[in-house]
This record gives sequence, structure tokens and C-alpha cells, in this order.
Amino acid sequence: MIRLDETICAPATSGGGAIAIIRISGSKSISICGKIFYPSEQRIKFQEQPGYSIVYGEIRSGDEIIDDVLVSVFRAPHSYTGEDSIEISCHASRYIQQKIMEMLVRNGAIPAQPGEFTQRAFLNGKMDLSQAEAVADLISSESEMAHRLAINQMRGVFSDEIRVLRADLLHFASLIELELDFGEENVEFADRNELIGIVSKVLSVSRELTSSFSLGNAVKYGIPVAITGRPNTGKSTLLNRLLKEEKAIVSEIPGTTRDAIEESIIIDGIQFRFTDTAGLRETEDIVENLGIRKTHEKIRSSSIVILVADINEAYNTVNEDINRFRKEPGNKEKKLIILVNKIDADLSGRLSELDKRIITGSGDSLLFISARTGEGIDELIEHLVGLIDTERMNSESVIISNIRHYEALSQVTESLERVLAGLKNNLQEDLIAIDIRQAIHYLGEITGEITSDEILGNIFKNFCIGK
Amino acid sequence: MIRLDETICAPATSGGGAIAIIRISGSKSISICGKIFYPSEQRIKFQEQPGYSIVYGEIRSGDEIIDDVLVSVFRAPHSYTGEDSIEISCHASRYIQQKIMEMLVRNGAIPAQPGEFTQRAFLNGKMDLSQAEAVADLISSESEMAHRLAINQMRGVFSDEIRVLRADLLHFASLIELELDFGEENVEFADRNELIGIVSKVLSVSRELTSSFSLGNAVKYGIPVAITGRPNTGKSTLLNRLLKEEKAIVSEIPGTTRDAIEESIIIDGIQFRFTDTAGLRETEDIVENLGIRKTHEKIRSSSIVILVADINEAYNTVNEDINRFRKEPGNKEKKLIILVNKIDADLSGRLSELDKRIITGSGDSLLFISARTGEGIDELIEHLVGLIDTERMNSESVIISNIRHYEALSQVTESLERVLAGLKNNLQEDLIAIDIRQAIHYLGEITGEITSDEILGNIFKNFCIGK
Repeated sequence: MIRLDETICAPATSGGGAIAIIRISGSKSISICGKIFYPSEQRIKFQEQPGYSIVYGEIRSGDEIIDDVLVSVFRAPHSYTGEDSIEISCHASRYIQQKIMEMLVRNGAIPAQPGEFTQRAFLNGKMDLSQAEAVADLISSESEMAHRLAINQMRGVFSDEIRVLRADLLHFASLIELELDFGEENVEFADRNELIGIVSKVLSVSRELTSSFSLGNAVKYGIPVAITGRPNTGKSTLLNRLLKEEKAIVSEIPGTTRDAIEESIIIDGIQFRFTDTAGLRETEDIVENLGIRKTHEKIRSSSIVILVADINEAYNTVNEDINRFRKEPGNKEKKLIILVNKIDADLSGRLSELDKRIITGSGDSLLFISARTGEGIDELIEHLVGLIDTERMNSESVIISNIRHYEALSQVTESLERVLAGLKNNLQEDLIAIDIRQAIHYLGEITGEITSDEILGNIFKNFCIGK
Repeated sequence: MIRLDETICAPATSGGGAIAIIRISGSKSISICGKIFYPSEQRIKFQEQPGYSIVYGEIRSGDEIIDDVLVSVFRAPHSYTGEDSIEISCHASRYIQQKIMEMLVRNGAIPAQPGEFTQRAFLNGKMDLSQAEAVADLISSESEMAHRLAINQMRGVFSDEIRVLRADLLHFASLIELELDFGEENVEFADRNELIGIVSKVLSVSRELTSSFSLGNAVKYGIPVAITGRPNTGKSTLLNRLLKEEKAIVSEIPGTTRDAIEESIIIDGIQFRFTDTAGLRETEDIVENLGIRKTHEKIRSSSIVILVADINEAYNTVNEDINRFRKEPGNKEKKLIILVNKIDADLSGRLSELDKRIITGSGDSLLFISARTGEGIDELIEHLVGLIDTERMNSESVIISNIRHYEALSQVTESLERVLAGLKNNLQEDLIAIDIRQAIHYLGEITGEITSDEILGNIFKNFCIGK
């Protein structure tokens, strides 16, 4: 529901803290705020206050003083939303915020929907749709790499690339459609090779962007790593050790069930989300089987799997565990780290034999550690980071992390593949034109040149209030 | 530890939300911020930016863009702390906030202690000590009445009253000490009756303020109400009903143990904190006795006790329960509401008899309700509010809610009582002077005219970071 004629208001900070911000945007922002705000210097005419200025004063409800506040004034179009806007900086008391919101609504503002400020920024041409989406990503970014993805997208690096592709395709379409207009005469205006060249170029970028999604998505939400292995091999000790080594940022993501506790660790700017799973052995026990089924689910949703083995049992168990792991459908693609633990307490004396004994698949890796003493943990951490395509992250190339963009680009790729095949097979121009228009359409959806209430609704409903 | 020569920085908003504020204060605020902030309009000279203005631009770390931000500039002495200050308004991502804090510290700022901005405001003469204390109260105020107490105190209503008292006593002291100087000559400069008049006046205000503390304290933290009664009389149903009727603001305060879950309800601007207790009956069961001991503790810390009885048993049980309640030491002073519940399911048919049967003490009240249907709940709520001295809350009279002020004023009262007795008994001037100086000292401690590192430390350690 688009309602740009209304003036909206919302708290932009969450509960707690010292200061709270209440935002107002819309043509009546300054006049509505003026009804409840009294500058402490009487000579100040609030309604005439210029943009990018701050006024100190009181919010009053009748005779009652609600708070001492700072009011920031922004004038259209020089504001986040492109509209006249106000930010009230008040004390972060729940009562005060509630009261100010009530007073604003009583004076003609309406409470903003989630993301409505950013939606207005989009509708008023301050940013395109993929930039608007990046605002939400930026706010939720927890690691350096996730931040980098979001800020590049917010600053329009991705949009620019999409716009170039779209311009190329529009040029292509104009050539094809010219031929269509003169279809009866069977004129070929465009050199087929030139057309193939244009489509191939766009297609290659589109494929490249589409293929970057799995990296971008993992970086954005954190790389899921499952820690698995037989009971008492030291899985929990390993997790605790990892948490201890990387003191930088550690947060616990509450899982949906007690079995799915995740620990998030940021290493070299990349967030890893570790899940400690139950064991993997086969059993006839129904309850235990339930646990094992959950383990398999967790492994399925992981990018990396760490299989922990006790050095004193590894000689006899690891190959069996690897086989069982690879047998599960979907596990073939996973990156597997075989981690032989408890090297500080090697009673078997078989450490030297294990290297030859353990049959790793291509791409698998074998590491020896002691989770208890910390030996080998640095190597493990380095190895984990090595599994991520950090080179691509650090390069200038655009990486997409938004599933909506991924889906649109997949459509673009498919359409262009049909176009290319059509050109090569001398398909009729009108059939080619359909696919090319579809590709243009999907590119336009990404940046919001083409949009619908439904698309907008889906995007902004996931924003927080006040943004 | 006072370190006004340093420039301090801290996040002033808590995690979550759309916008985060990072505050900087101290002589180097603007120059430190200038090292990491790049205005988007290149013609802007940030270092020369006037106070109460906002600049839009980027925080950059080397080539890396950390965020698009708004920077508010304040120039000494026209800022909260009285020093040059900056507020950076950035996206509320944890990574961004952490990164900006890191960069500020790397460029010469130090992370602020809790309350350090307000402490500076006090040390730089922007507010007195009781006003500084009110800032923390204001932020944590959840109800209209708690808010009113805090904002009046922050605006200096209380400080003004204290300063008048102190000025009166200083005048008194000057008269007494003049006499002391001429002690040998036995001159009486001051009319004894005039002196008695001054002290009596100050003493009466001091007593009045001291006596307001129990109301102020209860309003500030919420009025504690214990719900007690025999098992299955409908105590939980009653609590749920109260929560349902008052939809305004309901929050659950996590207790220290599972037995001490509190529900907070705001009625007519006053916060009530309800505790559902175990039963009150006598038993030999050790475990049950433990529960009952806890019940007694909760009742002891309550201002109001609601004793719930089942209408079908009330005829036989209530008087016994009232007697048992009154027998407990400390309960004599409590406000007791006897609540006969389940009037919608009166099988006893004795509703009409109960009024006469139940022997209430003076000040006790007897109400009939159905927690299940809601009948009588409005009357109960009205009655609860009636037990609070709302008239005093709504009057212009000053109410204190801070235990430090209460203790200082108690000392003032005691000293002045000795002065008054001394004057009446023609005690020597030098003995009277000691007590009067003590009273002046304690009044000065309230507003911070007299203070120590210890007092300041105790006050500001309970503030939040960034205030």
C-alpha cells in the first residue's frame, strides 16, 4: 500500500540504550513536530528552520514536559526519503517514546510500516530497489565480509552492472525489433555475429553473477559448518576451543530446538556458524535414530562438515565413517574435514600410521589436533578460511547475496540461452524478441525499473520499523 | 576517576533497531571525527562546521567505506556535556558500530565509562548532581508517574527547593557564627525566636521531603503487590485477568528464581508489580514450609497484599487467614485487600452473609469478584489506585525517590532536630553551630555542591554506557 501523501513516524532505535530516535517523514513532518516541540530559544522559528540543522528544546503535552530533546530538520529533497523529515533525539525511556509517538499520531502522522522510510527513498528516486534491499542487509551485517557485500550493493556497484547489461539488451532488442517491422521484406539489419556477441557477453556476466550467489549467500548468513563424529570424540570440546581462540565476536544464535544450538564465530571477517551434532553411528534404538536423522538434516544444510574422530579409535572407525558420510545423498558435494582429535593422549601409538590408513576423497582434508590443549587449532582455522573463496570476496567482482536477484538472474540466464540458441539456429526474430524482452524484464525487476506492489511488499515487510 | 582532558566515545543506542548513535565528547571530538569522516560535499570544511549542524558523508577506513552517516556537531559550551561533541548517526549494524568505535579509539578517543557524558555535564556545571541522577531515572522510567518524578527532578524543581533550604541555613549559620566571634562579650545578635522560626521552617520541609520517599520510591520502581491465599482460590486466574484488562503496557520482569515471577501492569500512570505467591496455610511438610517461608518474604517486601479466598470456603477460612496474616511481624502496616473470588460459582449461597461474617481490620477492604468472568475487576483496579496517594503525586509538591537523597535528608532532619532542641534549651552557640554545619553539608551533598570521588563513582556506575 503506497501512501506518499501521508506523514509517517516510527522509533528508529530499539529498546534500551541512552538515546532513542523517533523519525518523521512526509510533507507535514515539520508542521506536525512543531505542534509538540518548543525550542528553548524563543527567537527560533521552528517552521522556518533550514535543513541539516538541529534545534534544542522540549516536547510538551499541554503543560506537561515530556522530555528535553534535540530535533534534526531535513528539507526535501535533501533527506533519506527525499521528503521533509525530522529526527527527534530523546531519552531512551519506553514511556517517553510511546508518548511522543502518541502525540505525533494525534497531530496527524501515521505509524510507519516496516521499511516504509526506505520504500519512500526508492519511490522518490533516492535509490534503486537493489540498493534499498542492501540497506536491510547492511543493518543486519555482522561480519566484515557480509558488510562489504551489503555496502557495495547499497552504493550501487551491482545496480550499475545490471543497468549496463540491460542497456546492452535494449540495444539488441531495438535491432531485432527493427527487423520485425520490416519482416515482410526479409531484411537483416543486424549482423548475426554482432548479435551473438552482445548476447554472449551479457549471458556470461549473468552466469557469473548467478554462480556467485552460493558464496554471497553463505557470506551473508554465515558459512554453516556441521561438527559430527562418534560420541566422546571431543566435538563439544572442539567447539569450545574454537570459541575461545577467536575472541573477536562470538554470538549464540538460539536454535529452534535444543538440539540445534549454533555458535557463530567471525574469522578473518567471515562468519562461520558451527552446529554441534549428535553422533553418526548406526543404531536400532528409535530415539537415537531420531537424533541421527536430525544430524543428517544438519549436515545436509551445511557447506562444510567436520568429522571428528578419537585418535585411539580412528584406525578402526574413520574409513567406515567417511563411507557412511559419502553414502548419504547430497553429501558428495560437501567439503569434508577429517579431524583426528586427542593427539595429546595417543595411547594407540598409531598417529604415524593414520596418514596412510585413512582413505580421503579428493577435496577432503585430514588434520590432527588436540581440542583439549589447542594444538593444531590454528591450522584448522586457517584451513576453514581457505575453503572459502576469499580471493573472489576481495576482488572487485560483484557478488550477489540476495535470493530475489539470484532468481531473476537465473531467469535472465535461461532466456538468454534460448536467445543464443535461436540466433545460432536462425530462429524467427519474433520468437527471439519474446525471450529478449523477458530477460530485459527480469533485469529491470532487480533494480526496480519494473516493479509491482507485490514485489515491493515482499521486500519491505522484512525491514525493521523505522528504516 | 576524572579525566576531563580526554576525549571519550561510546555507542548511545543499544543493539537492534535501524539507526545507531555513537557519541564523542571532549576537546578533540571534532578533529578525531574529522580523521575518519568524509563529507559528501567536498566544499564543506568539517573542522569549521558550526554547532547544531548536521553533515552527511562517509566513514572510511583507508579505501574501505564503512558507512553512510549523518554527523551532528556541537560546540562547547552549547552541548550536553558542555564540551565539543559529535554524534555519528550510522546504520545499526553491530559490525559498523564496532568498526567506528575502533577507528575513533585508534585516532585518540577513549571508550567512555558508564554515565561519563552525564558526569561531564555535572563537572562542567551543566546540571547539578540530583539533576544528573534524574537522567538515569528518566531513561528507566516506564510509567507516567515515574516519568513525572524523574523529569521534575531533572529540571531542577527539587534542587531549587534544596538550595532555598541551604540558603536559609547558611543565613542562620552566619548569625550564629557572628555571635561566636563575639562570644566573650555574650552578645545576642539574633533573636532566638527568629532563629527558631528559620530552623522550624527548614525542618518541616526536610521532614515533608523525607516522608515523601516511600511514595516516591514505590512509584519509581512500581508498587509491589503480593497476591496470596489458599491453593485453588484462583490467584493465577486473577493475575491473568488483571493483565488482560490492562492492555496498555505489560512486561514480565524475570525474577531471580522461578518462584518469583513478577508481572508489571501500568494503571492510571502508576506501575504495579504483582507477585503470585504460594499459599499461606500451615503445614508440617518441609518442602511446603519452604514455599510458605518464601511467601512470607514476598509479603514482607510488598506494599499491598491481596488475600484471595474461594467464596465456597470463605465463610470458614477467611477470618483465620486474616488473623494469621496479621500475626506475622511487619504485616500490621500493610494494606490488605480481602478478595472473595468465584462469585459466579457460589454454591454455598452465603455471599450475602459474608459481609458480616468477615472481620476486617481498619484500613482493610473487602471485595467480591469473579476472576473468571471479570466481574468486579474494575472495582478492584479502582481500589488499588485509590490506595496510592495520587493526590500528592498530582500536586506541585516535591516527592523524592532517590535513596541517597532520602539518607541525606534524614541526616538533615536529625541535625535540625538537635539544633531546635538546642535553641529551646539555650545550648551554647558553638554546639548548635556544629549541627547546623552538618545539615548544610548534607544538603550540599544532594545537589553536589559538596561531593567526593566516592559519591560520584557510586552514582555514575549505575548509568548506562553512552549517557
